[in-house]
Amino acid sequence: MTVDSNLRVAGNPVDTRETPSLISSDKVEGTAVYRPNGDKVGQIERVMIDKLSGKVAYAVMSFGGFMGFGEDYYPLPWSLLTYNPQLEGYEVNIGQEQLKGAPKYNAHETWDWGGRGTRTVDDYYNMPSHFA
Amino acid sequence: MTVDSNLRVAGNPVDTRETPSLISSDKVEGTAVYRPNGDKVGQIERVMIDKLSGKVAYAVMSFGGFMGFGEDYYPLPWSLLTYNPQLEGYEVNIGQEQLKGAPKYNAHETWDWGGRGTRTVDDYYNMPSHFA
Repeated sequence: MTVDSNLRVAGNPVDTRETPSLISSDKVEGTAVYRPNGDKVGQIERVMIDKLSGKVAYAVMSFGGFMGFGEDYYPLPWSLLTYNPQLEGYEVNIGQEQLKGAPKYNAHETWDWGGRGTRTVDDYYNMPSHFA
Repeated sequence: MTVDSNLRVAGNPVDTRETPSLISSDKVEGTAVYRPNGDKVGQIERVMIDKLSGKVAYAVMSFGGFMGFGEDYYPLPWSLLTYNPQLEGYEVNIGQEQLKGAPKYNAHETWDWGGRGTRTVDDYYNMPSHFA
């Protein structure tokens, strides 16, 4: 072993999923999303990673419904989300009116991440096109 | 709705988790990791995302064990992994000997992602320090 054993802390079966700099993908999934005023908007279902750059490009936020039934899924540009350690969730600066008309899909639909769907999201939130 | 309904394909309850450019976090988790010769090395448990840059910095690869018992977890710099569409998995250019001495932990331990643990990984694989 080349690893200093101090780095590994025995007795805790759950490994550290978050530090001030890093967060694990399976911790991001399920994390709540709030408005700046503290209202809960939804929660992160998953993030979409750009294969080439390795950068998180989009998050899918779920909203409404009950145990997966009737939920809506909102693809959001990742850069609109800011982690707020006090809320223990992401803060998103999207107004209720803006969210009402936002691109979304539901459990019976798929989202076209291949180009047109991402452009729709980029355009709606006035972000530079991810696939420019 | 501002979204063209063509973007949403009804009748398929599973949304698209991969395109040529994007892959979803919950699809990366569980994806197999192979050597260039096609041998399976392990599978991705999770990825660690840099909060500031939004970039995937590390992957945790699990190896060995059975249904979570006796598994070892290898933190790897994300840039060492290349997706190979033919193998439907990630290819990693790490020899068997190199992996033998590599930084790892097990189900009863935690990994220090806070600084020393990531430096150990960066040093072992001769990568520029993630937190330089």
